[in-house]
Amino acid sequence: MLFPQQTYIERRARLRSLVGNGLIVLLGNNEAPMNYPANTYKFRQDSSFLYFYGQHRDGLCGVIDADNGQEWLLGDKIDIDDIIWYGSVDSVADMAAECGVQAHAPMAKLAELVAEALKAGRKVHYLPPYRYDHKIQLADLTGLHPYRLAPSQQLIDAVVALRSKKSAEEIAEIERACDIGYEMHTTAMRLCRPGVTEQYISGVIGGIAASRGAITSFQSITTMHGEVMHGYPSTAPLEAGRLFLCDAGAETNEHYCSDHTRTTPISGRYNQRQRDIYSIVSDCHDLALQVAKPGVKYLDVHLDVCRLMTDRLKDLGLMRGNTEEAVQAGAHALFLPHGLGHMMGMDVHDMEGLGQIHVGFNAETRPSTQFGLNALRMGRRLEEGFVVTDEPGIYFIPALIDLWRKQGTNAEFLNFDKIETFKDFGGVRIEDDVLITANGCRFLGEKRIPYHIDDVEAFVAENKE
Amino acid sequence: MLFPQQTYIERRARLRSLVGNGLIVLLGNNEAPMNYPANTYKFRQDSSFLYFYGQHRDGLCGVIDADNGQEWLLGDKIDIDDIIWYGSVDSVADMAAECGVQAHAPMAKLAELVAEALKAGRKVHYLPPYRYDHKIQLADLTGLHPYRLAPSQQLIDAVVALRSKKSAEEIAEIERACDIGYEMHTTAMRLCRPGVTEQYISGVIGGIAASRGAITSFQSITTMHGEVMHGYPSTAPLEAGRLFLCDAGAETNEHYCSDHTRTTPISGRYNQRQRDIYSIVSDCHDLALQVAKPGVKYLDVHLDVCRLMTDRLKDLGLMRGNTEEAVQAGAHALFLPHGLGHMMGMDVHDMEGLGQIHVGFNAETRPSTQFGLNALRMGRRLEEGFVVTDEPGIYFIPALIDLWRKQGTNAEFLNFDKIETFKDFGGVRIEDDVLITANGCRFLGEKRIPYHIDDVEAFVAENKE
Repeated sequence: MLFPQQTYIERRARLRSLVGNGLIVLLGNNEAPMNYPANTYKFRQDSSFLYFYGQHRDGLCGVIDADNGQEWLLGDKIDIDDIIWYGSVDSVADMAAECGVQAHAPMAKLAELVAEALKAGRKVHYLPPYRYDHKIQLADLTGLHPYRLAPSQQLIDAVVALRSKKSAEEIAEIERACDIGYEMHTTAMRLCRPGVTEQYISGVIGGIAASRGAITSFQSITTMHGEVMHGYPSTAPLEAGRLFLCDAGAETNEHYCSDHTRTTPISGRYNQRQRDIYSIVSDCHDLALQVAKPGVKYLDVHLDVCRLMTDRLKDLGLMRGNTEEAVQAGAHALFLPHGLGHMMGMDVHDMEGLGQIHVGFNAETRPSTQFGLNALRMGRRLEEGFVVTDEPGIYFIPALIDLWRKQGTNAEFLNFDKIETFKDFGGVRIEDDVLITANGCRFLGEKRIPYHIDDVEAFVAENKE
Repeated sequence: MLFPQQTYIERRARLRSLVGNGLIVLLGNNEAPMNYPANTYKFRQDSSFLYFYGQHRDGLCGVIDADNGQEWLLGDKIDIDDIIWYGSVDSVADMAAECGVQAHAPMAKLAELVAEALKAGRKVHYLPPYRYDHKIQLADLTGLHPYRLAPSQQLIDAVVALRSKKSAEEIAEIERACDIGYEMHTTAMRLCRPGVTEQYISGVIGGIAASRGAITSFQSITTMHGEVMHGYPSTAPLEAGRLFLCDAGAETNEHYCSDHTRTTPISGRYNQRQRDIYSIVSDCHDLALQVAKPGVKYLDVHLDVCRLMTDRLKDLGLMRGNTEEAVQAGAHALFLPHGLGHMMGMDVHDMEGLGQIHVGFNAETRPSTQFGLNALRMGRRLEEGFVVTDEPGIYFIPALIDLWRKQGTNAEFLNFDKIETFKDFGGVRIEDDVLITANGCRFLGEKRIPYHIDDVEAFVAENKE
């Protein structure tokens, strides 16, 4: 467990109090088969389960009776085969004791507890399942179809309320993830040169994440095609003159994340066109850091960035017209079809599985349906202790350019003839992880991965492997 | 696609012929959520789907009408969001054309085809699903519960018949995986020294697998506790004087596997007790290579190894009595609770998801229920073109020693007083991948990872990083 027992006891007590009544079921994850039942992916515990119980074993479930406070940790006993094949592991009794849960029982107890509660007309609270084994399990428990379950909004809201604000100890763990991220990204920058494959760099930095922590916090994006938002690395060798975009993060052994992006010139220096675009993105990146603070909506930080980006794209002749009108119309989304950032914590898009709308938005700040803005994952007012990413980007996506041009979308704000000449550009993104502090915000991680043009070029020149 | 179109067409034609009648449904894999729906594990296509269609995209399904030969490749269309987020990808029509399938349609067509077939009283053949999303999908198609489906034995037998014998091109791809395995294992041997963590070595060799191919073929075992059959690496630093067991393999980008194990002295040289045990295992390893050939049951190769192991453990005073009787009783299984090896190919335990009993056994060679022998995954007669692992080991498992001593299990063959003194030993395993040739067998992989005592010690001395 990362934290003292008392931390987990208090978290569950607050959860119980926020939910108010009914039976709360928190499913831990099971092993996930890759290509046959026994060949599983690396085990990843559910983040909310970790948050409330701190236990890393598969096959567990926490139950809290919110009405009377009774708690159970459920899980099946280990036998001699488990010991021979997987080594000596803690018993469920030991794990329950460790995290301060009074009662423990085999997993079969869950059906009994849920059936009793339902029979008594009580609410059974569960989070939206994202694993299919959980969908089947919940379907068996509730009698609903695996794809037509009814997760509890009260439970979602309570978990979001608790997990959104990071404690000092959680922030320290995120900083550890950022330190691993520093090693991953500076290694990628050193390896970035003509002839090295995207896959090679992805593999090496994945090895760094796994050798110093648990795993990458998501599948690394290491690509010459930065204009693909979440492209997977190919076996293509890097080409001189192009840009190399690396978006990657680490997860510590306790499953706190980092998430950074850098865009490095494969030839070591940005050419003029790349400097023009890159400097807009780095200025947008710095702007966000100036304006993000408690009380400010992250939606407004996003829009500030969009205005600056639009102004600067007008200077380059790629956009035109009134900046405010262009941003209102979403014209800049041709270049920035995603949001400025997302919450980050134990999930790299923190709590996204609970429903982005419940994490990044609320009654005051509603999500948009406009193209581009609809991909903003975090819009609501910032609070001290939030951790968010700051990740502006500019992309030239040939298929999207063709589509908008054909449809005449936002044609009054876009100079398609000039944009056409950028179709071979690719994309630029710069991303860091930001802690909202009492009066402002700060980057997380002890060392800065270089991102200003001069710093990147100097780093690459000094560190070529 | 790894092979020419004609290869896939022929494989499907043979499959159709072997199954004979009914509707064959071959589900390709979908993305597998890790900690929320959009944060997926690295995509791994189903091996049988790859074998018959060669297509790497998620969300596909192949259907073959075995009665009239009609074929479909099913999958949903991509849209502009797919292009923005994941890049330009081939259409289902293009993929169908590439692998020689005449018709294509959206995935919704599957329910229609299956419903028609069931209505007409025809058999719908599907393989045992190991992914839970497939269990739900098949439950929806058949009306059965996700955990009470009825996979087709005809289809299982047909797929096993086809995939068991590897073609020259498949063997070449396995050799490529073995070459990556060579780099992984020799790197682990170089890194193996006091103070380096198990996790560190696991991460670095995982990075090698991912940078040169797709992924590790299974979660690497890198441990001082070789006596745990499938222990995961810990953050514990390696200790002088102990043994370090590394069981790891690579998967190429086309998803053919390697699987090797080496046991290296952390201090650079084996001590006398380690030499005594290690030399038995290396002699057993070599023995298997001498006796494995077409027509020989792998069960008998396993038993030959068990006899040699028992003889040699008697020389050390750890076992006693008549060797043949001891092996018949399964007394050696205290030290070797697993089988000599398993099939290997596109799955590291090849086709294990189809049911080990259908892959490694048949009407002539039945699996055993005896402890130890019941973990033998491959027993039937070898044929030219089979690829199997040769992986003897000797382990001292404290909990198992205590249990057998308490129960008096095989007490007439075991010198528990002496065995007790080995409880701090750990375990030794040596594993290579073996191709059954026309007249015998050979190791796969261009270069041998050192495994004889003198070779290991010399390699470590020359290559310490």
